[in-house]
Amino acid sequence: MNVLQNLKWRYATKAMNGQVVPQEKVDYILDAIQLSASSSGLQPYEVLLITDPEVKAKIRKVAYDQSQITDASHVLVFAAWDQYTEERVNKVFKRNNIERGLDDSATDAYRTRLLGMFQAQSQEENFTHAAKQAYIALGSALVAAAEQKVDSTPMEGFDNKGLDEVLNLKEKGLKSVIVLPLGYRDETKDWLVNMKKVRTPKEELITQI
Amino acid sequence: MNVLQNLKWRYATKAMNGQVVPQEKVDYILDAIQLSASSSGLQPYEVLLITDPEVKAKIRKVAYDQSQITDASHVLVFAAWDQYTEERVNKVFKRNNIERGLDDSATDAYRTRLLGMFQAQSQEENFTHAAKQAYIALGSALVAAAEQKVDSTPMEGFDNKGLDEVLNLKEKGLKSVIVLPLGYRDETKDWLVNMKKVRTPKEELITQI
Repeated sequence: MNVLQNLKWRYATKAMNGQVVPQEKVDYILDAIQLSASSSGLQPYEVLLITDPEVKAKIRKVAYDQSQITDASHVLVFAAWDQYTEERVNKVFKRNNIERGLDDSATDAYRTRLLGMFQAQSQEENFTHAAKQAYIALGSALVAAAEQKVDSTPMEGFDNKGLDEVLNLKEKGLKSVIVLPLGYRDETKDWLVNMKKVRTPKEELITQI
Repeated sequence: MNVLQNLKWRYATKAMNGQVVPQEKVDYILDAIQLSASSSGLQPYEVLLITDPEVKAKIRKVAYDQSQITDASHVLVFAAWDQYTEERVNKVFKRNNIERGLDDSATDAYRTRLLGMFQAQSQEENFTHAAKQAYIALGSALVAAAEQKVDSTPMEGFDNKGLDEVLNLKEKGLKSVIVLPLGYRDETKDWLVNMKKVRTPKEELITQI
């Protein structure tokens, strides 16, 4: 099945059955996240992969008691950098230059301009910018999961501060952005599973110029 | 090639050769955008598909003169809703209910809660939320383009207000978010084409709990 067929197959799974997603499929989805595009290649986020039942139960409590969190075998939490620090940005450029056999000065001009841009923005603006990059990775993860016939459901409905506390994100300089449970649909309990997938018609969504 | 192989194949193309992407491939990428997930299924953005050379030239002027904009055959501009209005939200729910054969009251409670949430947030917060949804679609578009062996390069480097003016977005209640030129790499001119793809190592990107 190609990308379009997989996008048609997937849906925001409302009930999961507890079946465990095989490790190689989880790894495949994580690889897709890792390979995702991001602004200047900074990948300004981390992903928490949660399988511990106690931690999942705690997350469910700060996520409006949504059952997929405990009925998924794996819960991914995308957490974005709370700020673009010089240390974080420099580390990425240094690694790129080493891997590409370039002198560290090769990217100095670009890196300096980038740091100046981040410094001119508020912490909130920088966090928002970082969070957006995590959504690109989410887009890849959804397609990769569907290709593996793994169900998933992107969730923004949770108490961000509460989740940050459960996962000690603040001390890591991270803030939770989106949650993605991975598992398998429970067709007997999921009210959405047989509903028609509806999208904005292309003539409304796309304007040709 | 599967999603991972396609993600490895793609890169942020820095020079394009002017070759035209066939319409069926453009349509395939637009279908992937249309099928993308979004918060409550609102798809709170539109996509401008630009082929007019004069308009591309104007966009290039407000995008730091980046050559891909005029050397791509198609330029996609993702523009998010500037605000979640009752009219926009109700329209989506109404369409969904008609398509699914549901009474319009079936989703009243959820819709009312959602509108309350948007009304409690500032216009800027709502726009940011809408913009993030466009990044999920961008993630799908990048994978779909790579599957079609179409090159692309996501661009945030442009004057947002300038681009909004070129495309008259304000009067449509939209604000530009990201630009995605579609075309074919110029291997002789692209400094990035032969560079190693470098990503954050998984042990830094992923934490298992």
